[in-house]
Amino acid sequence: MNTVVQSPTKTVLIGPDQPFVIIGERINPTGRKKLEAEMLAGDFSRVLRDAQAQIATGAHILDINAGVTSVNPQETEPEIMVQCVELVQSVTDVPLCIDSSVVPALIAGLKAAKGRPIVNSVTGEEERLEAILPVVAEYNVPVIGICNDESGISYDPKVRLAVAKKIAERAERYGVPRADLLLDPLAMPVGAVNTAGIDLFTLVRMIREELGCNTVCGASNISFGLPNRHLIDSVFVPMAIAAGMTCAITNPLEKSIRQAIYAADVLMGHDESCMRYLAAMREAEAGARANGAASPAGDERRAAREARRAARSSRQAEG
Amino acid sequence: MNTVVQSPTKTVLIGPDQPFVIIGERINPTGRKKLEAEMLAGDFSRVLRDAQAQIATGAHILDINAGVTSVNPQETEPEIMVQCVELVQSVTDVPLCIDSSVVPALIAGLKAAKGRPIVNSVTGEEERLEAILPVVAEYNVPVIGICNDESGISYDPKVRLAVAKKIAERAERYGVPRADLLLDPLAMPVGAVNTAGIDLFTLVRMIREELGCNTVCGASNISFGLPNRHLIDSVFVPMAIAAGMTCAITNPLEKSIRQAIYAADVLMGHDESCMRYLAAMREAEAGARANGAASPAGDERRAAREARRAARSSRQAEG
Repeated sequence: MNTVVQSPTKTVLIGPDQPFVIIGERINPTGRKKLEAEMLAGDFSRVLRDAQAQIATGAHILDINAGVTSVNPQETEPEIMVQCVELVQSVTDVPLCIDSSVVPALIAGLKAAKGRPIVNSVTGEEERLEAILPVVAEYNVPVIGICNDESGISYDPKVRLAVAKKIAERAERYGVPRADLLLDPLAMPVGAVNTAGIDLFTLVRMIREELGCNTVCGASNISFGLPNRHLIDSVFVPMAIAAGMTCAITNPLEKSIRQAIYAADVLMGHDESCMRYLAAMREAEAGARANGAASPAGDERRAAREARRAARSSRQAEG
Repeated sequence: MNTVVQSPTKTVLIGPDQPFVIIGERINPTGRKKLEAEMLAGDFSRVLRDAQAQIATGAHILDINAGVTSVNPQETEPEIMVQCVELVQSVTDVPLCIDSSVVPALIAGLKAAKGRPIVNSVTGEEERLEAILPVVAEYNVPVIGICNDESGISYDPKVRLAVAKKIAERAERYGVPRADLLLDPLAMPVGAVNTAGIDLFTLVRMIREELGCNTVCGASNISFGLPNRHLIDSVFVPMAIAAGMTCAITNPLEKSIRQAIYAADVLMGHDESCMRYLAAMREAEAGARANGAASPAGDERRAAREARRAARSSRQAEG
């Protein structure tokens, strides 16, 4: 069962028989004071650069979060969301993921977005279910359902599965089909909760078996507080893919994650004749030769080049 | 269900609730002409170095292969096997894995080995089953069962599962319990067989569910013929672990594999409070600081240091 996400010219399929889908997480002012200040001042040049860099390094969908928290978001966020969506659409043609906890900002983003973007997100909280699912149904778009409710995020995976079921049932009542529901079982930090990894893998499998839904997660929460986080993240994502996870919100500029996903697609049988893997490795090698010694700027340029050829033979079908 | 492997002083448990077990593959003259020539000349200094380096970098068990193919192995291999086993036991205390296709060499190795070594291996071929299982039963040791038979290695995972069942049934008839059977579903090269990865993951899961057996595989065959093999290998092993694989025959000197296994243990909930992961990362960091620029020799020294502290708090219980 595929979740269909679209821009005016591109269709991205999310599903168990598809290559893994990367939703680029970078366009988000949370914890990025400079980006927030720029957004408030009407300067979206960094948003533009983040969009282009993520697509060059393999993002299939771009998350757009305009959550400027230093002012009243109910008033300011909708307008900033619209500006971000319009700007990103003017320079790229990948589908979008409209990311906000502010309903008017979600609606404004949905109005501005062309095609079939994802809504990020609803939770199992009554108030969120009742506020967001009617909007999702009206715009006929996919939605991310996060497995927490009024009581918070449970340490018990059975409770998170129960929340997943509640979201799926409520979505059905509002006419949102299972194929349009991407469930996020929530990765807890494994440094604090010893079973966080295996719990996530079990939930991904149970959500597939019991609800038939595709799954998504923020890939970096798992490693919070541990040293060498990229190592944990880039091992976590393939293990979750082996359990059936279909997409992640992550940073494709991070080479170890990007490369792990190329390899995981090969190992799931989702990269025919290893074409995308081979292209990515050729680009990486060519980049390394051209750049000689590493430099941060060189790394980013190289990352972009590495991914460009791979992106050309990529999983996104021309719509 | 744990497979119990022992030296006189150490017990290694292989099982679904245990940390992943690394069987060090380096003591093997296949494709190492220099090592073969030295073995035939009675020079075992490289065997010694390989043993120590692998233990320092985290091997829990050492595979001993004395397959000198340039001479008649039926005559020469048993004596070389005994020399290797005795030498390795004189300098280390980890359990061994006696690796030979020559039955007299297997028997000689089993006689020389103290504790409870693994026999590597039997296949589903009638002649091998009848020759090796009685030896395994007599010595009361675990055995690796490889899922091919007279017809070769099938591309069809269903056929490989049928071979697994045949081996398990025959082992039972000889009094070898399920807990002592480590099944190898065989990783085909994914560059040649597009479904090789997912087939392996499916087989690992089915072997667990239908036979209750622990699984093992040679971790590097999967990447044969592809560029950047270490990337494929170090993504493959965690994905197989997520599917339930319990140990691998691999090279712990390879940093990417070793680190992926540390992270996978954390994510499976098999590294309490991430103690081994944290120790390994501290050692890696200290090693990087002390060594400055990389050098091949420095890499090996660093690898050994990195793993030493981790090994101290390791999964091997004092017996």
